[in-house]
Amino acid sequence: MTPAPLITFEGIDGSGKSTQARRLAEHLQARGLDPVLTREPGGSPGAEEIRALLLTGDPARWSAETEILLFTAARRDHLEKTIEPALAAGRPVVCDRFADSTRIYQGATRGDLRAVVDDLHARIIAREPDLTFVIDMDPAEALTRGLARRSGEDRFEEMGLPFQETLRHGFLALAHDHPERCILIDGNRPEAQVATEIAARAESVLNL
Amino acid sequence: MTPAPLITFEGIDGSGKSTQARRLAEHLQARGLDPVLTREPGGSPGAEEIRALLLTGDPARWSAETEILLFTAARRDHLEKTIEPALAAGRPVVCDRFADSTRIYQGATRGDLRAVVDDLHARIIAREPDLTFVIDMDPAEALTRGLARRSGEDRFEEMGLPFQETLRHGFLALAHDHPERCILIDGNRPEAQVATEIAARAESVLNL
Ligand SMILES: Nc1ncnc2c1ncn2[C@@H]1O[C@H](COP(=O)(O)OP(=O)(O)OP(=O)(O)O)[C@@H](O)[C@H]1O
Ligand SMILES: Nc1ncnc2c1ncn2[C@@H]1O[C@H](COP(=O)(O)OP(=O)(O)OP(=O)(O)O)[C@@H](O)[C@H]1O
Ligand SMILES: [Mg+2]
Ligand SMILES: [Mg+2]
Repeated sequence: MTPAPLITFEGIDGSGKSTQARRLAEHLQARGLDPVLTREPGGSPGAEEIRALLLTGDPARWSAETEILLFTAARRDHLEKTIEPALAAGRPVVCDRFADSTRIYQGATRGDLRAVVDDLHARIIAREPDLTFVIDMDPAEALTRGLARRSGEDRFEEMGLPFQETLRHGFLALAHDHPERCILIDGNRPEAQVATEIAARAESVLNL
Repeated sequence: MTPAPLITFEGIDGSGKSTQARRLAEHLQARGLDPVLTREPGGSPGAEEIRALLLTGDPARWSAETEILLFTAARRDHLEKTIEPALAAGRPVVCDRFADSTRIYQGATRGDLRAVVDDLHARIIAREPDLTFVIDMDPAEALTRGLARRSGEDRFEEMGLPFQETLRHGFLALAHDHPERCILIDGNRPEAQVATEIAARAESVLNL
C-alpha cells in the first residue's frame, strides 16, 4: 500500500471547497477508507484558537507580517497534532485549504512578503499535499453563493470582486505551475457533478 | 536631541526585571521624560491575546516551532502598535523582556532552532534595543523570590533550578557578546540599590 495521502482543496471564496472536501471524505469512507476531514486555518484545538484570533474582531487589527506568522503557527500545530498522526496511522487526510491559500492571498495583497511566506514554509512546514484540487469558477457567481451564507468570518470575502479576480488568477497560476500535484476543477457546475469528477480523479491518482 | 531609546530588561525568572523596569520608568518620569512602560510577550492588545495563548493552558500544548512563531507574531504586533509609535513621538520605551528572551530560552531548550529564531528576527522584527539591562543573579535565590508569587503564568519557571542555571549562562553570554548595548547588573542586592545603579547607568549612556 502507498502511504496515506494529504489531499487539499483550494480556490476563491465560495467556490465550493468545503462542500467538495466533505463530499470527497464521504466518498473515501464509502470506499472503505477511514479519512480525516479537516480545514485551515484551524483543524486542531490550538490552531482553532489561533483561527479565532485571525478571523474575528477588527479585520485591520493584524498587519500582513503578523498575520503570516499566525497562519504559519496554526498550520504547524495542525500538521503536528492532526495531519501527521492521521497519515502515520494510514488515514487519508482531506483538508479544506492549506499552504497554497496563504501563498495566493498574500501574493494578492502583499506580494513583497512572498519571500517571507516561502521561507517560513520551507523552515516550519516543509510539506506539500500529495494532491490538490483547485476549484476554478467565476468570482461573480461564487460571490453570490457566498452572500447567501453569513459565517461572521468573512474578513477576506469583504474585499470584493476585483480582489476575487486577482485570487482566481493566482489559483490558476498555481495549478499551472504545479501539475505534479494540482488538478484544476471547473466549479461552475452542479455540486454532484463536481463531486463525481473529483472522486474519479482522486481514485485514479491515488490508485484506489 | 537623540532619538528616543528602546531600553529592555533581561535575565532569569524572578531576577527583578519587572520591578526594575517599573522603577526606571518612574525615574525617567521624575526626570521630566514621558516614558512608556511595556512588557513581552504582550504590550499591545493583539499581543496580549497571543500571550494568553502562550502562557495559559497545558504547558506542553505548543511545540517549540509553533511557540517561536507565536512569540514573534506577538513581538511584531507589539513593535508596530506600541513601541514604534512611542519612539516616533519621542517617548523612551522601557520594555520588560524582548527578543533576547526568545533567543536565550530557545537556546536553552531547542538550540537546533536558533537559526529559525535569528532568521525570523531579521525578517520580521529587524530591531535591537538601544540599551539592555541584563540582571544577573543566583538562580536559587531568584527561584525563592519567584515561589513567593503565584501568577498562573509560570510555565517556564516550573522547569526548575538546573534550567535556570542554563538560562543564566545564556544571559551572561549575551551581555558578553553585545557590550555595545548590554549592561550587566548584579541583581542580588536590595531593590533600591539595584534601581539606583540602573538609573545612573541609563542617564550616562543616554546622555540625560
Ligand atoms: N456546485 C455548487 N453549485 C451551487 N452552489 C454550491 C455549489 N457548491 C457549493 N455551493 C454552495 O455555495 C456556498 C459556498 O460553498 P462552500 O462553502 O463549499 O465554498 P467554499 O469554497 O468553502 O467557501 P469559503 O471560501 O468561503 O470557505 C455554500 O452555500 C454551498 O452550499
Ligand atoms: N532586589 C530585590 N530583592 C528582593 N526581592 C526582590 C528584588 N527585586 C524584586 N524582588 C521581588 O522578587 C520577585 C520577583 O521580582 P520581579 O517580578 O521583578 O522579577 P522578574 O524578573 O520580572 O520575574 P519573572 O521573570 O517571573 O517575570 C517579586 O516578588 C519582587 O517583589
Ligand atoms: Mg469553506
Ligand atoms: Mg516579570
